[in-house]
Amino acid sequence: MRKITILRINHRHFRDHRISTHVGLAARALGANEIIYSGEKDEALLESINKITAKWGGPFECSYNPNWKSVVKEWKKNGGKVVHLTMYGMRIQDRIKEINSDKSDLLIIVGSEKVPWDAYELADWNIAVTGQPHSEVAALAITLEKLNSKSLEVEFKEAKIKVNPCEKGKDIED
Amino acid sequence: MRKITILRINHRHFRDHRISTHVGLAARALGANEIIYSGEKDEALLESINKITAKWGGPFECSYNPNWKSVVKEWKKNGGKVVHLTMYGMRIQDRIKEINSDKSDLLIIVGSEKVPWDAYELADWNIAVTGQPHSEVAALAITLEKLNSKSLEVEFKEAKIKVNPCEKGKDIED
Repeated sequence: MRKITILRINHRHFRDHRISTHVGLAARALGANEIIYSGEKDEALLESINKITAKWGGPFECSYNPNWKSVVKEWKKNGGKVVHLTMYGMRIQDRIKEINSDKSDLLIIVGSEKVPWDAYELADWNIAVTGQPHSEVAALAITLEKLNSKSLEVEFKEAKIKVNPCEKGKDIED
Repeated sequence: MRKITILRINHRHFRDHRISTHVGLAARALGANEIIYSGEKDEALLESINKITAKWGGPFECSYNPNWKSVVKEWKKNGGKVVHLTMYGMRIQDRIKEINSDKSDLLIIVGSEKVPWDAYELADWNIAVTGQPHSEVAALAITLEKLNSKSLEVEFKEAKIKVNPCEKGKDIED
């Protein structure tokens, strides 16, 4: 399996805290290997993602890098490819085969409100999950599910807690 | 096509404003017909969803109802079925065929942090998009995509603005 890293750019401490948390948790739950946050530094954000990984299992890496462009350039220098999720991009349903037939490690750029032009330029694919304004969490979830047919079946290691499927109520292994 | 309505319960004005906005926008973009918010009343939330529909097209209904249980009961009385999205439910990949083979109108309950026990009881299906803690926006997006093979191809009517797919940059019809 190729490595999939999420790069959340332009994070704003106050305004984006919960959305960026959802981006990180969805990335982990759906089988991405890592998330790198850029923008404003937010220790509580990293802590809450790492807490979930410590309790619910991993591996899942979470870190901060103030320079998102250097992350992208380093990624490409190492032979990785880059998807930028944007409502202005090409339709995911038209490009997913091409992306999946390429086996390089994949960096997925997930922007906040304003995305710098460089993100469009540096990406190998600018990809839209519908051309409608909605949610980067929704777009990332659908993308991860289309990239990895096992995204709903990830087995987490060293979990302290686990949920078993249940018709009604909760079945928790603690 | 059956009708799909999202019922966002337990909305909290301050804490959930952006996540609930993302729930509504993802619901619209991915082809649901309607969202009903319950919990604390939040006029700005309804306004921001309705603004997007006015500009980007519809139809998409958005309303507030303080009594979520009466919404569910009314839905069932009219012959509709109810999915409750919860990490404690049955795996979506194991139940989606059964849900899709039932043609009744579908109400999808999307909770916030604490979900009352009644939601588990009233639902025809308690459904998990992974048994991991992540994001109701991500869970809803994947569910809508699995319920409707055309969720990425919705044509919106009376749109004042439209985005055309683009390799790099933005192609906007205004």
